[in-house]
Amino acid sequence: MNKRVLLTGASGFIGAQVLDALIGKGYEVHVVVRSKDVLFSNEVNVHIFDLFDIENHAKLIKEVGPSHLVHCAWYTEHGKYWESLENIKWFKVSLSLAEQFYALGGKRFLGLGTCAEYSWKDGLCSEDETPLLPSTLYGFSKLALYRMVSEIAKNYQEQFAWARIFLPFGPGESKERLIPYLINGCLHGETIRCQNGSQLRDFLYVKEIGDAITCLLASSVQGAVNIGSGRAIQLDDLALKIALMLGSPELLDLDQNLRTIDKETQMLVADTKKLLTEVKWSPKLEMDDALLETIAWWKNI
Amino acid sequence: MNKRVLLTGASGFIGAQVLDALIGKGYEVHVVVRSKDVLFSNEVNVHIFDLFDIENHAKLIKEVGPSHLVHCAWYTEHGKYWESLENIKWFKVSLSLAEQFYALGGKRFLGLGTCAEYSWKDGLCSEDETPLLPSTLYGFSKLALYRMVSEIAKNYQEQFAWARIFLPFGPGESKERLIPYLINGCLHGETIRCQNGSQLRDFLYVKEIGDAITCLLASSVQGAVNIGSGRAIQLDDLALKIALMLGSPELLDLDQNLRTIDKETQMLVADTKKLLTEVKWSPKLEMDDALLETIAWWKNI
Repeated sequence: MNKRVLLTGASGFIGAQVLDALIGKGYEVHVVVRSKDVLFSNEVNVHIFDLFDIENHAKLIKEVGPSHLVHCAWYTEHGKYWESLENIKWFKVSLSLAEQFYALGGKRFLGLGTCAEYSWKDGLCSEDETPLLPSTLYGFSKLALYRMVSEIAKNYQEQFAWARIFLPFGPGESKERLIPYLINGCLHGETIRCQNGSQLRDFLYVKEIGDAITCLLASSVQGAVNIGSGRAIQLDDLALKIALMLGSPELLDLDQNLRTIDKETQMLVADTKKLLTEVKWSPKLEMDDALLETIAWWKNI
Repeated sequence: MNKRVLLTGASGFIGAQVLDALIGKGYEVHVVVRSKDVLFSNEVNVHIFDLFDIENHAKLIKEVGPSHLVHCAWYTEHGKYWESLENIKWFKVSLSLAEQFYALGGKRFLGLGTCAEYSWKDGLCSEDETPLLPSTLYGFSKLALYRMVSEIAKNYQEQFAWARIFLPFGPGESKERLIPYLINGCLHGETIRCQNGSQLRDFLYVKEIGDAITCLLASSVQGAVNIGSGRAIQLDDLALKIALMLGSPELLDLDQNLRTIDKETQMLVADTKKLLTEVKWSPKLEMDDALLETIAWWKNI
């Protein structure tokens, strides 16, 4: 199969890592960005295009002629993305892009899903067993895209993969999210307020996520695949770990409000059996090393 | 509130009954049909328009200026509609229509949902309790429309109602479906093959459905409302009832294959509490009278 990849969201938190991983594996990579201001290395083919210009999706696909499409672009503004109507706009953009991709000869579409597609009552989320009962518009819009694009791919007898991302962290993450909040609090000597610290979550370093997505793309595995570490970490253990790495455990106030995605969900962890046995991918870095890299990144910006 | 209703699917199985009920209640009714060949009474304002012409939805809405939109149009070809990609096309058409309706000042959108939005494991389907886990693309596409339009309506602070239809029967039903199959088998002296006859289903006469939808439209009830009889009828009792009405019980072969929507679902019945207590609607006809009217209709065509 020809390996010309069209990547959307290439300047985003996850997309940027996917781009690095794709280049590292020798793909011919084409990125689509809205503005000329984003700079890429010379190996990247840049197409200036606004994805909301749905009527010209066919033109874009014809211009690039991709065999693979990795669709990372979405609305992700912290605190707003769970219920924003932007989710519906991005759903429509994404559906159209997938339709035009397959209609014009595309072979393998890989979309970014989310753990928020699952019911969070089960704790351990499995692709085949956990009910798909999103409680947010973000989760529902991703689920709708997954469900519809999988039918379209089937109709064209082409391939479709769906990377359900759990909790990413690393360089480029929004400052308001948990791990950047912990790191920056310690760096600036601010008190870190924590509550619900007994909750268990599944974090994965965003560079690992980029690698896992590229590995899923290269495979012939179809359908949804959880992208997580498969390991549960307790939030107050995480907070303490980071504070100790930065030499300031005294800043932790463990009885206060720790920012977390859902107060009522005690455990949210990926079942990574499919990722391990079918995609044959597992994390290369220890969590501690990934955290140290992330801390170094925050120190340098 | 002004009462100018735009109705789609007005020549369809359910839409035709909604049209009659709307006229009976004195609404100013505008219908949108693709072809001039469909004839309506003089009170109906007819707009010739192809709903797939999404780019002109705004133009249509501006032309009609509806305060209410009752959206009955969808793809319903028997045997094909459960998994057809037409569902995605109709989903897109419907989402655009709802968006333009609210953007141009529409007050109350009423869409047609389906019992196929629910998980069918529960037996009795309740709007607030039964998990929304559709097993078909038809059910999922309806659910996606429900979920997204409800968010759009909320954003505009306008009203949104969603009529989840259970099993309709009556004049104009597709010949291949269960009740027409039973009636026509008896009328033509053909053996009627039945299997899974112990299953329980919730049937409602399509004229009653038209009345219930109009009543829901006139109310200020929001969100999803089950439209069913709330009563379970056993399929072999139904077959026997029809055969007796037509004087030919000897045609029943109860060990054979009765056409039914899902072999594995023993019971599928609407919880009609919300319909009864909030919309304050209940069926006016007994099931037997509705069946006799339906039989009379089949005899006359």
